[in-house]
Amino acid sequence: MKIDNMLQLFSEIKAKKPLIHHITNSVTMNDCANVTLAVGASPVMASAIEEAADMAKLADSLVLNLGTITEQAFTAMIAAGKAANAKGIPVVLDPVGAGATAFRTEKAGILLEEVDISIIRGNASEISALIGGEMNTKGVDAGEVSLSIRELAQVAADKLQAVIVISGAKDTVCGGVNITEISNGDIWLTNVTGTGCMATSIIASMAAVADDHYSAAIAGISIMSLAGELARKKVREEEGIGTFRMKLMDEIFLMNAESWEKGVKLETDRL
Amino acid sequence: MKIDNMLQLFSEIKAKKPLIHHITNSVTMNDCANVTLAVGASPVMASAIEEAADMAKLADSLVLNLGTITEQAFTAMIAAGKAANAKGIPVVLDPVGAGATAFRTEKAGILLEEVDISIIRGNASEISALIGGEMNTKGVDAGEVSLSIRELAQVAADKLQAVIVISGAKDTVCGGVNITEISNGDIWLTNVTGTGCMATSIIASMAAVADDHYSAAIAGISIMSLAGELARKKVREEEGIGTFRMKLMDEIFLMNAESWEKGVKLETDRL
Amino acid sequence: MKIDNMLQLFSEIKAKKPLIHHITNSVTMNDCANVTLAVGASPVMASAIEEAADMAKLADSLVLNLGTITEQAFTAMIAAGKAANAKGIPVVLDPVGAGATAFRTEKAGILLEEVDISIIRGNASEISALIGGEMNTKGVDAGEVSLSIRELAQVAADKLQAVIVISGAKDTVCGGVNITEISNGDIWLTNVTGTGCMATSIIASMAAVADDHYSAAIAGISIMSLAGELARKKVREEEGIGTFRMKLMDEIFLMNAESWEKGVKLETDRL
Repeated sequence: MKIDNMLQLFSEIKAKKPLIHHITNSVTMNDCANVTLAVGASPVMASAIEEAADMAKLADSLVLNLGTITEQAFTAMIAAGKAANAKGIPVVLDPVGAGATAFRTEKAGILLEEVDISIIRGNASEISALIGGEMNTKGVDAGEVSLSIRELAQVAADKLQAVIVISGAKDTVCGGVNITEISNGDIWLTNVTGTGCMATSIIASMAAVADDHYSAAIAGISIMSLAGELARKKVREEEGIGTFRMKLMDEIFLMNAESWEKGVKLETDRL
Repeated sequence: MKIDNMLQLFSEIKAKKPLIHHITNSVTMNDCANVTLAVGASPVMASAIEEAADMAKLADSLVLNLGTITEQAFTAMIAAGKAANAKGIPVVLDPVGAGATAFRTEKAGILLEEVDISIIRGNASEISALIGGEMNTKGVDAGEVSLSIRELAQVAADKLQAVIVISGAKDTVCGGVNITEISNGDIWLTNVTGTGCMATSIIASMAAVADDHYSAAIAGISIMSLAGELARKKVREEEGIGTFRMKLMDEIFLMNAESWEKGVKLETDRL
Repeated sequence: MKIDNMLQLFSEIKAKKPLIHHITNSVTMNDCANVTLAVGASPVMASAIEEAADMAKLADSLVLNLGTITEQAFTAMIAAGKAANAKGIPVVLDPVGAGATAFRTEKAGILLEEVDISIIRGNASEISALIGGEMNTKGVDAGEVSLSIRELAQVAADKLQAVIVISGAKDTVCGGVNITEISNGDIWLTNVTGTGCMATSIIASMAAVADDHYSAAIAGISIMSLAGELARKKVREEEGIGTFRMKLMDEIFLMNAESWEKGVKLETDRL
């Protein structure tokens, strides 16, 4: 991820104002719409089965977020996902709660079979669930083997044939042949609902204009983590997560290639 | 729209605290509830088919917003709309996304046939879709003729027999015999999701206490645009749309007949 | 409610980070998730019938909020409620709009029959509806008798066999043998949507770690009312409910046993 690429992404997204179709969860959809606008893209949320595919045909990328999945929304996701695949636009999956209930894990599994997913963003526990593993205090228990977060990202990228983004104290992005760790962020990002969902929306916005999914994933997740870091610094002693949440949106809106380059802490290794 | 009328609207809404029933989209419904409270009215959102009509019977006006329309919500809209018509309360339509998919355009069309709509607020593209036209870079292509925004408002008001509000750089309100242009607003209103939906909720709140729909529409849309203008002035260099969004709600809450008169820029012509 | 108990609640909730399952209304669910995080608990919202019971089995308490109730969500509430009862975790009911439509009153009634409810929080009108009474300007008309708010709380606690919380200018908590009045709060809490729903989420968060439901109810409702009072004091003349709403979340997040003890105004009587 070079500053030149990032400069290009930031300017292209403002020039093209890509349409990001979301079939997403009702808890955080307002925040996702606002964050999509904040980075310069245009959000639309349409989950009626009668129009989900039509809307995907108009879009430049598609977000599928399992946060408050129902059978109806799932049917719309499959239809929109297939329409997105046919059009050739990126599909970004946020497997919220995969592993928590059998229903969610199963739905995530079917989506991965039926739709060609470009990028998946989740926490370690959710990504583990997608490859049939389980998080424990030592790392990930994936059948016979025990995996670190880095290894989990690699195994998932290979098995699911998608760019994998694992959010955490460090964010890990694996694109198959390269792996990037991002050391930005702030613990308060876990005190606000939907920061994960919002990161997914930013990734999808970047993917709509980027040449490759790996760069889009790094750009998107690092914007969220860096914005969290910058926002936290502006919160005073007598303020809390209400103020933080507002300033987080400010920082995402204000970020440009220069401030991104100045603040971001990336480390990329070839696998 | 005279300051006397506006004074009366501001005082009546606070005295009567009208109940504004919304069947609305899930992206912006929290903002719509808050903005309804901010102007002094009382919001309720009930879209279950089993109670939508009953709730409309308790209400003083009804908002129908197509933002995340589903077949179920649509059925509730028809029932609530008919109950509102029977009671004689205003029905305000926000045709979000009309023209984007066949499903939405069709649903908007059925609503306009089945329910007597008092006021319609949308952007030029949505209003165009309601009269079978299409936006292009030069204006609106409505079959054989090409229309300006002003002409679009007139044609739509005539064809749909409702007060038409077209949001844009200037807002245009057409009530059949008069047309008003409002030159307030700020480009940042397009950087926050739901400012259109919120304007619709304010219009419906005003319509619940106003003598005529045309005055209610001018009052409602001008409050939103003027509040946007005032809020933007209070946002500092290092702040963004998070702060703007909060201050927008502040300005709507703080507005009174005096500050409205001082800031509003209206121009009315008789047709 | 002693400061020792409160100290313990504040520290236990942060240590245990209990999971609070919500089947709740779509208007305020984002605020409810954020407020749950603000007090140190962990929110999950899952209302698909296929997983509602499974999620309740993972949870430490369950919120059932009737705000935008549909037949589908209601079925999920019954299933989740029964699963919560089987596991022995607290179930907190927010009967939003009970009494407004026959549908809501009926659904609330069925829930109270089918599920063992630990705590109910509503305004006087909603609580009245649950016992077949009706609010009027003089108080509550419950068939042959006329009840004050205190009496309403007692009658409801007895009839519904649950701790009753009635939000109002003063908040009233009745646990059967004791009744507590809380004199904190601010009128602006009624100018923001969802402050009642948020109070319910805080109560459920406290109930997940408290020894008894009565203490949890007092703790929860008093945190919200005191936070409202503190937030209002920090809002300047030129600010409104946008700023208030943000600072409310700040104050809830910042509150600890010491600041709670310093500000809270409780009065408890033995019945």
